[in-house]
Amino acid sequence: MALNQLETILYSVDDGIATITLNRPEKMNAFTAKMRDEIVAALDETDRDDKVRAVIFTGAGDRAFCAGADLSSGGNTFDYADRKEASREEAVVNGVYRDGGGMTTLRIYKSLKPVIGAINGAAVGIGVTMQLPMDIRLASTTARFGFVFSRRGIVPEAASSWFLARAVGMQTALEWCYTGRVFNAEEALQRGLVRSLHAPGDLMPAARALAREIADNTAPVSVALTRQMLWRLAAADDPMYAHRIDSRAIQARGKAADAKEGVSSFLEKRKPVYPNKVSSDMPDFYPWWKEVPFE
Amino acid sequence: MALNQLETILYSVDDGIATITLNRPEKMNAFTAKMRDEIVAALDETDRDDKVRAVIFTGAGDRAFCAGADLSSGGNTFDYADRKEASREEAVVNGVYRDGGGMTTLRIYKSLKPVIGAINGAAVGIGVTMQLPMDIRLASTTARFGFVFSRRGIVPEAASSWFLARAVGMQTALEWCYTGRVFNAEEALQRGLVRSLHAPGDLMPAARALAREIADNTAPVSVALTRQMLWRLAAADDPMYAHRIDSRAIQARGKAADAKEGVSSFLEKRKPVYPNKVSSDMPDFYPWWKEVPFE
Amino acid sequence: MALNQLETILYSVDDGIATITLNRPEKMNAFTAKMRDEIVAALDETDRDDKVRAVIFTGAGDRAFCAGADLSSGGNTFDYADRKEASREEAVVNGVYRDGGGMTTLRIYKSLKPVIGAINGAAVGIGVTMQLPMDIRLASTTARFGFVFSRRGIVPEAASSWFLARAVGMQTALEWCYTGRVFNAEEALQRGLVRSLHAPGDLMPAARALAREIADNTAPVSVALTRQMLWRLAAADDPMYAHRIDSRAIQARGKAADAKEGVSSFLEKRKPVYPNKVSSDMPDFYPWWKEVPFE
Repeated sequence: MALNQLETILYSVDDGIATITLNRPEKMNAFTAKMRDEIVAALDETDRDDKVRAVIFTGAGDRAFCAGADLSSGGNTFDYADRKEASREEAVVNGVYRDGGGMTTLRIYKSLKPVIGAINGAAVGIGVTMQLPMDIRLASTTARFGFVFSRRGIVPEAASSWFLARAVGMQTALEWCYTGRVFNAEEALQRGLVRSLHAPGDLMPAARALAREIADNTAPVSVALTRQMLWRLAAADDPMYAHRIDSRAIQARGKAADAKEGVSSFLEKRKPVYPNKVSSDMPDFYPWWKEVPFE
Repeated sequence: MALNQLETILYSVDDGIATITLNRPEKMNAFTAKMRDEIVAALDETDRDDKVRAVIFTGAGDRAFCAGADLSSGGNTFDYADRKEASREEAVVNGVYRDGGGMTTLRIYKSLKPVIGAINGAAVGIGVTMQLPMDIRLASTTARFGFVFSRRGIVPEAASSWFLARAVGMQTALEWCYTGRVFNAEEALQRGLVRSLHAPGDLMPAARALAREIADNTAPVSVALTRQMLWRLAAADDPMYAHRIDSRAIQARGKAADAKEGVSSFLEKRKPVYPNKVSSDMPDFYPWWKEVPFE
Repeated sequence: MALNQLETILYSVDDGIATITLNRPEKMNAFTAKMRDEIVAALDETDRDDKVRAVIFTGAGDRAFCAGADLSSGGNTFDYADRKEASREEAVVNGVYRDGGGMTTLRIYKSLKPVIGAINGAAVGIGVTMQLPMDIRLASTTARFGFVFSRRGIVPEAASSWFLARAVGMQTALEWCYTGRVFNAEEALQRGLVRSLHAPGDLMPAARALAREIADNTAPVSVALTRQMLWRLAAADDPMYAHRIDSRAIQARGKAADAKEGVSSFLEKRKPVYPNKVSSDMPDFYPWWKEVPFE
């Protein structure tokens, strides 16, 4: 998919920070199979482009981040047999339709660059579960959230049963998914879903400042490894699995040019200039995991 | 076990909400093998009865939720060889006595209906570990809690070593279990054990209002699936396991009558009337897990 | 290693509480392979000595807990091939250097005694990851923390990718490791890394009071079992694994002299005197796990 033919998102890169904007403002940025494909394509690009140091997701307009699945099919919205989207057909494995939300969140999960959510308005259904594999979530004070699945007769999707308790603990995860109610930004902050609240006009500057802090100070290969290590090794059932990987990573990175520059620049109290690149310098033990297949 | 012959608990259903009341107020609702069996029987009933949409646990009287194991056997309280309760004998597997607290909490864990704890007073030992597989805990401002096992020469039971850190994080879990001290409702709130505090007279109304919110707005089959998905899939070591299950669930539920009613009622801004029932309409891939045996 | 020849730490035991003091104050207690070995030796002693009921870690001087790896090798600090420390060579397994931080944290993880961190100043790199397997962390209001690895061109080590999200959740773990910034004690408290803040002069008294509460009231064998149960069983993917172990533990400990003393002393409202010892009275099913090997 060519990023110059995008229909449902905007993609831009500015000084090392990529911004992916969900862009169907007349539909409150409702999610479609097309949007899924375009998000995946955009993340393939952010992974590939060494100039990109961090990715920000936000929504177009001031009403919504993403209002969930597009309900224009009415009562048949979630009935796959009733739908004719080609891109959905491609996602059928052994007679099982892969959930499009999950295809999106698993792609975000694999990102080599840090992913920041700048939640600018309503975020409901896939509009909120999509945020869960993002690393850090900032929200506008006008944002609101809803895990509304039980009120639509379906269930939490997008692998959110795995991600949600990691973000807010089991008690809150269950309450939000059972009741399906829409809640405000303040509750999202207090329960730990979002990291900070900002006036609407301050949201993108705050997200960019955080991305800037990463881009200006840290080694890209270090950050790419860190992302996969923290998400994946925390889920292991013994800390020895982390010790195995970080021993290899310290050995590989410790002798790399980045480590010499990192320590030298610190001792010399100057800005670092890291020579290694994600595209060419990931260590040979990466990836260390075996992907779990869908079937 | 017939629910019309209960000795240690009360069971009632009112407008879709079942209430299980630990009912030995003269003993501060201390836990016995009989109470274990009656709780299990009551949950078999709440699972079976489609009219029940949520379950509330509370304690009789205003002093205690449950003061822990009945210590009337004194120093031999935890010495199984010294006890003659038939129901305990039944729980011996290959020479190992299954802990009665764990038999209770694992049964709560399997509930098809949401479980709300309304903690009305002292909750110590099994009185607090019993709460951990409950989904949402509300407490009276007069409640107090204690993981007192290390002060009795024993250890945390009722599978609480699995449940407790999921509720309050490892640091708090360890501090409470090491010291064994009794703490107040405010600390329980601040550390995340309970979701909210209420004046004693407001506790049951608040618990019922939360149950009401679920019962009035959500699809029963959605909630039953959501409960098992959130508890079980969060414990997997890769999000793909969640994607496998929720893809199947969205496919199965998306074409069901509940999903059509859920979306239609939302678009028509009216109360939903969900046709599917837990007793007959759980999808064919449920249960998707293999039970881990005791031995 | 003899504890009377320590070079990089101090070790003392006072009324049941062992204190391990990182003791290179002129180097801000920077971590070395020697310090690693001495910490391991000290924990072998605290495990062995039945008089020790709890362990406190702190740093010498008022500036630092531990400022991280000793950077006196400059840009080659993390390049193992460039280093000649014999104790590092011993840790090579099949050509892979075991990370010294991880050897330290995995040893803390296995401690039979509760471990309390009294974080008295700067704690950066291994100075903060070393704290993560400690059970409870108290900090001076003057402490500061930094997961600075990405700013040095390396990655989080010491198995912190396993431990950190257990302490503070994934969102905070990722932000701290991505940005690598140094943050103050207040942020450490608000995000849950430390349990409480204290004026510098009040820190060690507070840590000792917490250790005292454990030592004066609880059974040593109960606490040793509780420590391994909570850390290890919480990481299992099903609560049945906890039920298997705590059923055995309740059966074994319930008939032990400690349980009789625990209940009797409680009913008699007197201080308990527990007869069982960690060195001789751990139950026969302990350890119940199989150690995961490095390779």
